[in-house]
Amino acid sequence: MEFKKVAKETAITLQSYLTYQAVRLISQQLSETNPGQAIWLGEFSKHHPIQESDLYLEAMMLENKELVLRILTVRENLAEGVLEFLPEMVLSQIKQSNGNHRRSLLERLTQVDSSSTDQTEPNPGKSDTSEDSE
Amino acid sequence: MEFKKVAKETAITLQSYLTYQAVRLISQQLSETNPGQAIWLGEFSKHHPIQESDLYLEAMMLENKELVLRILTVRENLAEGVLEFLPEMVLSQIKQSNGNHRRSLLERLTQVDSSSTDQTEPNPGKSDTSEDSE
Repeated sequence: MEFKKVAKETAITLQSYLTYQAVRLISQQLSETNPGQAIWLGEFSKHHPIQESDLYLEAMMLENKELVLRILTVRENLAEGVLEFLPEMVLSQIKQSNGNHRRSLLERLTQVDSSSTDQTEPNPGKSDTSEDSE
Repeated sequence: MEFKKVAKETAITLQSYLTYQAVRLISQQLSETNPGQAIWLGEFSKHHPIQESDLYLEAMMLENKELVLRILTVRENLAEGVLEFLPEMVLSQIKQSNGNHRRSLLERLTQVDSSSTDQTEPNPGKSDTSEDSE
């Protein structure tokens, strides 16, 4: 399993995602304190894909240095406040989602079994499930 | 700062992203072991956005249960192997990137200062500023 490569790519994606969240927050604040600049930011973000966060910030530097500084500060704050909780949150989400999908799969398989063996009893295999370590 | 909301949204995004990475890995493996199924998986992924990972998996369940199980297993492995390293990786990436952008900003500012002392810099909105704590 190529953990290292996946970790690197995921980290880059996360960095861009937190930059996006920072821009979203600042945009909300601006729409109250400085609507004109909120509109400007919206327009700018339409023309510069934030997925490429470094290019996005470099382009903005030519037009509004102050806003760049604000985005840098907010995304670092977000990173410090949010990142540490993610591993546990995401792992438990995935385990729960996997459990749901496996259960649903088993139900479908037993339904297929019962109809193909011509037993009319609904859901006979419902008890023989949970080999999962839940 | 709405850390809780951002953390939740980021966790959901990460779950989908790891599902995407699992599908990518499996697709690579299949292209060697079972090219026909690799093509099928590519076609399926064209028509079902993986950003909605739960819907993606539910839809696949109707067509290829075995592949669903494989995706579930791989994304859980990826989550277990990758997530714990992300907070440190992303935080240090962001700090480094912020440092670079701040340096580049300072360089530009001092260049502007030295070349145009009669303030021709076109920069509206410079008055609305740092209520942020930095």
